[in-house]
Amino acid sequence: MKKLEMLYEGKAKKVYARDDPQVYIVDYKDDATAFNGEKKGTIPGKGAINNRMTNHLMQLLEKSGVPTHFVRQLSDRETAVKKVTIIPLEVIVRNIAAGSMAARYGVREGTPLKISTLEFSYKNDDLNDPLISEDQAVALGFATEDEIAAIRGYSHKINDFLRPLLLERGITLVDFKLVFGKTDDGVLVLADEISPDTCRFWDVETGEKLDKDRFRHDLGGVEDAYSEMAHRLLGS
Amino acid sequence: MKKLEMLYEGKAKKVYARDDPQVYIVDYKDDATAFNGEKKGTIPGKGAINNRMTNHLMQLLEKSGVPTHFVRQLSDRETAVKKVTIIPLEVIVRNIAAGSMAARYGVREGTPLKISTLEFSYKNDDLNDPLISEDQAVALGFATEDEIAAIRGYSHKINDFLRPLLLERGITLVDFKLVFGKTDDGVLVLADEISPDTCRFWDVETGEKLDKDRFRHDLGGVEDAYSEMAHRLLGS
Repeated sequence: MKKLEMLYEGKAKKVYARDDPQVYIVDYKDDATAFNGEKKGTIPGKGAINNRMTNHLMQLLEKSGVPTHFVRQLSDRETAVKKVTIIPLEVIVRNIAAGSMAARYGVREGTPLKISTLEFSYKNDDLNDPLISEDQAVALGFATEDEIAAIRGYSHKINDFLRPLLLERGITLVDFKLVFGKTDDGVLVLADEISPDTCRFWDVETGEKLDKDRFRHDLGGVEDAYSEMAHRLLGS
Repeated sequence: MKKLEMLYEGKAKKVYARDDPQVYIVDYKDDATAFNGEKKGTIPGKGAINNRMTNHLMQLLEKSGVPTHFVRQLSDRETAVKKVTIIPLEVIVRNIAAGSMAARYGVREGTPLKISTLEFSYKNDDLNDPLISEDQAVALGFATEDEIAAIRGYSHKINDFLRPLLLERGITLVDFKLVFGKTDDGVLVLADEISPDTCRFWDVETGEKLDKDRFRHDLGGVEDAYSEMAHRLLGS
């Protein structure tokens, strides 16, 4: 279980190689960024919460038929995951208009959507992760038609699984971002994380935001929001 | 055949009511704009060419099974069209990466696409016609799932019809924009225009641009490009 060289440092995580070439180690940071890196800060305790929450949810998803990159939690902040080649697409699943989507189409944040929607972006920081149609992702070779169809199916399945689970804990799942990868064996798996960094969670009763929007928009109580989500989902 | 009040003045066309309430009159202008109205100019003769070319192509499409708003050409610049409620989506059909798409994904203009693609935007000048996924167009009530499916089908059919027709005249159909509307009877029809204002036409041999990109990017020979397209497609 030896950490070898760091392969990649992202905004909220570091990824290390390990002695087993099929496994990486993910190390969650407390660093937070927003607006494509323009805003930077630290949210104490965030790394440990996101690590535990992601692992908890990925294990539940795995049992319900969604393959994930999760292997084993190693410590409070570190998890062993399957080595994958990331598909360069971000998928945002939305149940309610909020954030960039509400602004883009001039609708009020909180507008209910007639159907749950998927939104694909090309993962490329230099280009500001531009929106991309599924057609164009195939046309430019970022994914195959089969991969897009599988991503579409899993994304809706994850939404259908998470919404009632969160609702039971008094949380409305507004939207969330997913990233997928492929193992060397060609299996498509859910990668990245599922946490208040990558989801919008609103309290069902009060509408209070319990996610990274508190950091993005300087709403205060950022650490408390992450702790509250940990409490509701993980019981601690 | 009396023109009544002007209902709408767009960037390149005016629309008038007529004594028959189911019919509008479209009047093509020589005015040209680009980059969402930031660049303005005039292309002498453009209105007449776009009117004739649109009518010619819409009649051919109608025969090949694509319903259009075309009724009858009234003069060099004026055409009677069916009164429709415009669906607030623009569809761009692309065969080769060019223009905004090439810039958005950081690919070279002229990159061939593995498949022909559709790209939907929400027609809203104030919001800069933002890209929208088909899901989100349905979710926000801009179109129904059935309308999106019909638009998708017709758009590919139009591409399959126009590409070989243009190729025979030595033209590569790079991309083009479509707008659809619904008649009071609920029939979905192709509206707007099909012209060098709304298509990218490249000479097959030389790659020379024969469309509005000459105006957008100050390439010179703007009127000649429109005349050349009229010559190749209409024989005059």
